[in-house]
Amino acid sequence: MNGPEQAAQVAHGDAVLAQMLAHRSVRRFADMVVPDGDVERAVAAAQRAATSHLVQSYALLRVRSPQTRARIAELAGGQAHVREAGAFFVVLGDQHRHRLVLEAAKVPYCASLEPFLVSVIDAALFAQNLTLAFEALGYGTCYIGGLRNEPAALDRLLGTPEGAFALFGLCVGVPAERPEALPRLPVGAVLFEERYPSAPELAQGIAAYDRAFGAYQERVRGKSGRTWTQQVLRLFGAPQRPSLAAHYLAKGADLR
Amino acid sequence: MNGPEQAAQVAHGDAVLAQMLAHRSVRRFADMVVPDGDVERAVAAAQRAATSHLVQSYALLRVRSPQTRARIAELAGGQAHVREAGAFFVVLGDQHRHRLVLEAAKVPYCASLEPFLVSVIDAALFAQNLTLAFEALGYGTCYIGGLRNEPAALDRLLGTPEGAFALFGLCVGVPAERPEALPRLPVGAVLFEERYPSAPELAQGIAAYDRAFGAYQERVRGKSGRTWTQQVLRLFGAPQRPSLAAHYLAKGADLR
Repeated sequence: MNGPEQAAQVAHGDAVLAQMLAHRSVRRFADMVVPDGDVERAVAAAQRAATSHLVQSYALLRVRSPQTRARIAELAGGQAHVREAGAFFVVLGDQHRHRLVLEAAKVPYCASLEPFLVSVIDAALFAQNLTLAFEALGYGTCYIGGLRNEPAALDRLLGTPEGAFALFGLCVGVPAERPEALPRLPVGAVLFEERYPSAPELAQGIAAYDRAFGAYQERVRGKSGRTWTQQVLRLFGAPQRPSLAAHYLAKGADLR
Repeated sequence: MNGPEQAAQVAHGDAVLAQMLAHRSVRRFADMVVPDGDVERAVAAAQRAATSHLVQSYALLRVRSPQTRARIAELAGGQAHVREAGAFFVVLGDQHRHRLVLEAAKVPYCASLEPFLVSVIDAALFAQNLTLAFEALGYGTCYIGGLRNEPAALDRLLGTPEGAFALFGLCVGVPAERPEALPRLPVGAVLFEERYPSAPELAQGIAAYDRAFGAYQERVRGKSGRTWTQQVLRLFGAPQRPSLAAHYLAKGADLR
């Protein structure tokens, strides 16, 4: 690259990294609908994400009906932003299209964990591009994992067929708040060299993070008690969405 | 926003979307190592991706040893770029840290599909940010799903413990090729409105895509035969990595 080209590349790169660093989940939105043109631009850009063997085993469902969104907000555990965001989407791992292709050719579908995993990974790579694209267009976003609370009721609402697995929701809209960014684990606790590190090495990273997270909690939320390790204990020490696997199995996934 | 601020936002947004649209998988790299500073910048930006309840249940392992990389290239089905890229990474869904936290507090880990799924989604959101960050810094990238071919042998090489699941690899380096971008499904075949569409509606999108993909193949690769539906039949009509689930189970995942 010559001088000016290199400078353009650096400026360009900086804009992309700055966009990532600016992320925070937004849960309060102005009462403004997200125009179709912005959605189509964001989706087309997001689709450029890599996809295993180009199978593109994901789909995106935009829900507009206030009644349906109110019901999903409820199913997700009472999350008002599902109702109030300028746009609400459901991200699906989706092999239904692929099943239609197989059916037409009279080739039986061969299930195993691998194609399910590919769908989940494909969908998440697409979704992260999508989220960043919306943020780059000036919107705030929030993923909704609570969509997995009541998967059967959700599927009935949306008419999702065999081979399509609702994974999470995405709220998008003009932000009406600017929350502080939540601290992340130090880079050294996430990026390892050559081999997986030992437990004592990991413990250092966790302790440093716990202090940073505690300081954040105290400063922003005024709670000094809650540490990251307490959050981990609460989540991994209790059953989480125990009926989810049975639901995906009933929809044609094979997790063996 | 006022005029100049809005203009800056638009330019900024355009840079991010342009970066996504410029993606292609790169498999030929110049013989140049990726500097640590670039890796740390990319990882720190990527970590800003949303993560379920802030659990951050992923990790990134950089492999430098030429011997280890040669072995991984082999395990992945003979992919020379695993050996030749300026940097090679393994992306893991990783709850090992969380298990250490539970152990220290004597709280038993409560396994189900949900925490495994959260790890996979967390890891993929992080990985897509990471990939785009590297691309924004001027590098080419290629995901390596072939890492799931021989998961037990890979884990022995990397020393990955219980609760850590190698999901895919990532090659990063100064590109020595500029492949043409592969066509994607039309937006209308991925973005649905209100409810999941009917099979005849889907069939239209698939047919249009099959034509576009066939034209691409003919133009770029000189093969006129191979359609997308043929690729789908080949992948979903045959067993894929049938031992993967058993491997993840042995590492402490519960897929029920």
